[in-house]
Amino acid sequence: MSAALPVAILGAGRIGQVHARTIVHRIPGARVVGVADPRIEAAHALAGELDIPVVSDDPLQLIHAPEVQAVLVCSSTNTHADLVIEAARAGKHVFCEKPLDLGLDRIDAVLSEVQAAGVQLMLGFNRRFDPDFARVRTLVSGGAIGRPEMLRITSRDPSPPPAEYVAVSGGMFLDMTIHDFDMARFVMGQEVVELHTMAAVLVDPAIGAAGDVDSAVISLRFADGALGVIENSRRAVYGYDQRVEVLGSEGRVGNRNQAADSVQVADANGLHDPLPLDFFMQRYTAAYAAEIAAFVDAVRLEREPPVGGHDGRMAVVLGLAAKRSVELGRPVRVDEITA
Amino acid sequence: MSAALPVAILGAGRIGQVHARTIVHRIPGARVVGVADPRIEAAHALAGELDIPVVSDDPLQLIHAPEVQAVLVCSSTNTHADLVIEAARAGKHVFCEKPLDLGLDRIDAVLSEVQAAGVQLMLGFNRRFDPDFARVRTLVSGGAIGRPEMLRITSRDPSPPPAEYVAVSGGMFLDMTIHDFDMARFVMGQEVVELHTMAAVLVDPAIGAAGDVDSAVISLRFADGALGVIENSRRAVYGYDQRVEVLGSEGRVGNRNQAADSVQVADANGLHDPLPLDFFMQRYTAAYAAEIAAFVDAVRLEREPPVGGHDGRMAVVLGLAAKRSVELGRPVRVDEITA
Amino acid sequence: MSAALPVAILGAGRIGQVHARTIVHRIPGARVVGVADPRIEAAHALAGELDIPVVSDDPLQLIHAPEVQAVLVCSSTNTHADLVIEAARAGKHVFCEKPLDLGLDRIDAVLSEVQAAGVQLMLGFNRRFDPDFARVRTLVSGGAIGRPEMLRITSRDPSPPPAEYVAVSGGMFLDMTIHDFDMARFVMGQEVVELHTMAAVLVDPAIGAAGDVDSAVISLRFADGALGVIENSRRAVYGYDQRVEVLGSEGRVGNRNQAADSVQVADANGLHDPLPLDFFMQRYTAAYAAEIAAFVDAVRLEREPPVGGHDGRMAVVLGLAAKRSVELGRPVRVDEITA
Amino acid sequence: MSAALPVAILGAGRIGQVHARTIVHRIPGARVVGVADPRIEAAHALAGELDIPVVSDDPLQLIHAPEVQAVLVCSSTNTHADLVIEAARAGKHVFCEKPLDLGLDRIDAVLSEVQAAGVQLMLGFNRRFDPDFARVRTLVSGGAIGRPEMLRITSRDPSPPPAEYVAVSGGMFLDMTIHDFDMARFVMGQEVVELHTMAAVLVDPAIGAAGDVDSAVISLRFADGALGVIENSRRAVYGYDQRVEVLGSEGRVGNRNQAADSVQVADANGLHDPLPLDFFMQRYTAAYAAEIAAFVDAVRLEREPPVGGHDGRMAVVLGLAAKRSVELGRPVRVDEITA
Repeated sequence: MSAALPVAILGAGRIGQVHARTIVHRIPGARVVGVADPRIEAAHALAGELDIPVVSDDPLQLIHAPEVQAVLVCSSTNTHADLVIEAARAGKHVFCEKPLDLGLDRIDAVLSEVQAAGVQLMLGFNRRFDPDFARVRTLVSGGAIGRPEMLRITSRDPSPPPAEYVAVSGGMFLDMTIHDFDMARFVMGQEVVELHTMAAVLVDPAIGAAGDVDSAVISLRFADGALGVIENSRRAVYGYDQRVEVLGSEGRVGNRNQAADSVQVADANGLHDPLPLDFFMQRYTAAYAAEIAAFVDAVRLEREPPVGGHDGRMAVVLGLAAKRSVELGRPVRVDEITA
Repeated sequence: MSAALPVAILGAGRIGQVHARTIVHRIPGARVVGVADPRIEAAHALAGELDIPVVSDDPLQLIHAPEVQAVLVCSSTNTHADLVIEAARAGKHVFCEKPLDLGLDRIDAVLSEVQAAGVQLMLGFNRRFDPDFARVRTLVSGGAIGRPEMLRITSRDPSPPPAEYVAVSGGMFLDMTIHDFDMARFVMGQEVVELHTMAAVLVDPAIGAAGDVDSAVISLRFADGALGVIENSRRAVYGYDQRVEVLGSEGRVGNRNQAADSVQVADANGLHDPLPLDFFMQRYTAAYAAEIAAFVDAVRLEREPPVGGHDGRMAVVLGLAAKRSVELGRPVRVDEITA
Repeated sequence: MSAALPVAILGAGRIGQVHARTIVHRIPGARVVGVADPRIEAAHALAGELDIPVVSDDPLQLIHAPEVQAVLVCSSTNTHADLVIEAARAGKHVFCEKPLDLGLDRIDAVLSEVQAAGVQLMLGFNRRFDPDFARVRTLVSGGAIGRPEMLRITSRDPSPPPAEYVAVSGGMFLDMTIHDFDMARFVMGQEVVELHTMAAVLVDPAIGAAGDVDSAVISLRFADGALGVIENSRRAVYGYDQRVEVLGSEGRVGNRNQAADSVQVADANGLHDPLPLDFFMQRYTAAYAAEIAAFVDAVRLEREPPVGGHDGRMAVVLGLAAKRSVELGRPVRVDEITA
Repeated sequence: MSAALPVAILGAGRIGQVHARTIVHRIPGARVVGVADPRIEAAHALAGELDIPVVSDDPLQLIHAPEVQAVLVCSSTNTHADLVIEAARAGKHVFCEKPLDLGLDRIDAVLSEVQAAGVQLMLGFNRRFDPDFARVRTLVSGGAIGRPEMLRITSRDPSPPPAEYVAVSGGMFLDMTIHDFDMARFVMGQEVVELHTMAAVLVDPAIGAAGDVDSAVISLRFADGALGVIENSRRAVYGYDQRVEVLGSEGRVGNRNQAADSVQVADANGLHDPLPLDFFMQRYTAAYAAEIAAFVDAVRLEREPPVGGHDGRMAVVLGLAAKRSVELGRPVRVDEITA
């Protein structure tokens, strides 16, 4: 294999920091040669911590730096499409956090540019790399439960985001459920063809005032006729609730939530087990590392990344379908969105 | 309290036998004075086993027997309405297996007769008396999880019924899901106002050929805005899967399936735990006993039975709504059915 | 098979009531024809509840009643030996609660009389009939874990008995651990040849003042070289703790404690599961019924009862060895007791 | 705090590699300035992987290198004492893998030298830093279960070591159980005063031929009167079995084994969960990292390391007592060893 892949981190916020640390400490096949963030002090802090040689307040500078072969787009959602296009045109491989964009036309434009440029594009659906969910997929695809017939995804955040975030995030379906849509496609190994959303504002009226919902039951129909359901809530006071279960003709497979330890206390009031890990930074630590390792491998070995542009597009399509189902009060076929 | 309540068992099939044995062996407050079944040998067998004095091939004979104060209607569904009306007119209290009838008009006629007669009517929604589900309800109503926001019922039979049964049963929604609809109303303590059904034939094409479905995801909206979902399948090769989970503003509550024992084997291939109890006769043994005890208590203490005619009616209403949602391919408001 | 076996209950206390109700309600192969207790009002109460025809304050009267074919000795420990001998001489089959006696000579005398009389004697080691422990034994003897190498029995009462009971009970090893000694022999299918006891008074100083201990770790060596350990405590505030685990050359098998329901609550403080069943009357309900059924079957089918006089003797031998190990402060070989 | 602590790794075998990688990738407060191993190619390989500047086949060279402030003794057991003494005399702080030595006199000599030199000495009892066991200790010391009364440690290796290793390791009690002895002292927060060992060769006759045992039940008595038991086996085909349970006056606390994922498959044969992690390198990954971080913190902050020379000595004392108990066939008081 060639020498370590030189990458630039575009965006030194929470997730940019995670990826940068992962590369420096855990991925010998890559090295971080630059970090850019308009909040230059954030970029400097990360560079200082990790000995990153180049710091900039302009992501374009790093995209065009000759020594950079790949970029990780970790900036705010509204910048994703522009940066991916710019990087593709510059011949740089791209890892991009979800979503590519909130608009389908824009996504299609991005995908065209990427294809034309012949660079690799990988989308940041980290949960596919979680050991539990990866194992569920392996078991399902390996036939451990026969033909998969019914999927359930329980996905609940510990607490709702601020209402101002809701406004810019594209709403629950494009911000939170988008992960579950990707998980549904990943675990079942096929496309969703129809969905119905029953949604409500139960957690925080401010979310409703911002035009969004915070609770939903989304029914899914897959291409081969199998069914599914996603349960979403913006609040689970007991911690981040992330479970997948698949019923098949020959069995059932599913995961449990993970806790920081496995110590049980029994006292006169009951048996008490620890809460699930509180949120994604703890729950998906291993997944983030495996995800970036997969991107680096794909680029170095010149093979298709495991989560590509089509996956990024379809998750947004399903998010848009979920919104439309709420607006129309009826099931929506996926081809109504993509037509 | 008065002397033991004299009851007659109408129908000596599987469930009639269960109730008869329960009364004889476990409920000192009642005694079985007669059993009727058109298959007279079934009635004789049960009477022989339990020392029941009167045996008949005609349920009407027992309904009108002066010593009988209450009847348990355990015959086939298509006889329920007639027998309940006959018993009500005769001034006898009635315990009736679900459903009262497959038609709403007929159910309304039954309820009118019962009300006019002033007798007690209890419906056989046994699962309310299961220790697990009763505990879930107690915790929800007691505020253990704050305001209930999202209900999930996983309800899967171990294996599909014969296609000929499907034809006379009224279909999955009125035969199987009816229990889940009652559970939804019971656990949440309120009415469902809207539902959407996404259904499929995934288990047995013969069920489809008989005009029914065998798999469904049913989204629910409750009167106070809370959401819910019922997952149904006619097949779970690992046993009878009966789980309820409620998410609330302050927590989550749910049960596990029950097994015949709790012995785990660990070997070089994994940790192996026993399967869930195979079907309702094993799973709901305690529930059947508690249910009949509750009926006997209600009659003897002249108080409202815990599951009444309205409950029987609403479960059928929801079953009809689920069917209509499939036919129309859209959500259905409950008042569309009852209007 | 012959007509229902007519039995008499000797002792109308807690366990006598359990057995009488079991026979009346659950065992068609037997009927209770008499109950005796020096506290005659206890005998009358039980007879009234269950329609038992003969009531006496003298167990001998029932032993010698011609219609009685078997007796259940449910009286206090110090009467066991006399009653069993009397019954054997009268040609009556005997079910006797543990222990047969606290003295080995007396036990040997009893066994001689029983053998001479040719009657059946079954000892009340109810735990062998618990579905969990029966399953553990079946798995071990069936080779599910290969060769059994190490046994662990965790046996903790919810709360200590009154000190006055301790005095008459023969002490913890002959009153409480005796069940664990029997379980050890049952699960491993072989004899213990050596044991060492490390004991203490940690729960209640009054137990120490009465000359007994309330906590112990008892190491076991079996005939084929396998090892074992019994952990005893007279107090577990979280409920009756009854677990068995066996390590073998090819795996491990063990049970979990049982609770009244399986409902978990998750809130901001943790995941909370229900406590184990509080004590033996709840924990071993099914075991008591299966035990008596096994006795009745053995008598009616004229076959060896599954727990016989030798088992009753060996459990006492091990209890005496445990005591001697404490007194001598060293391991004790079983043949030191029996020699 | 001062600049990063410069350390040398003495021994580039399995555990030396683990510690070196931990420091390089996870502990900014330290840096590895040298690695020594008589197998020079092992030292070179590790240095190459981690950019370690100095490589030697002689640990003394690194101990005396002026830039080295602390050493990690990761070499074979028979070199531990010499290296610790040499380092102490050179004024270097020492982290030493267990055991310090197999002989008590030699250990005492080492501790004298360390004390005279005034350097820090930490012993590698990694399990104290495992999140589960650390949590058990925290709960016990915080009073969550009241007064601790009975400890149980289940400690089973997945498979036995080669017989030749057994010969040089000091035997099971000083090689394997030594960790459990330290855990017992750690969890209970007090000393063991007496123990009794019942041991056997059940797993591999070659171990017996080498003069060792492979299975044991070790009863413990603590200074305050509490009891305990350690169950050891050199073979658990289902994986590394590492569990601790403490019974107290107000409850019970214990951990579960950890698996690589939490995915359960239910099929027609049962519910199947993944095996425990296979061995210490996987099971104790987090513990090793936390352990080294604690050592580095202790040195930099000039405070007592959390596991010191006394702890290292006492674990060996208990190992020797366990051996003597087997030899003498009786309980052994700890003061018999230390006197």
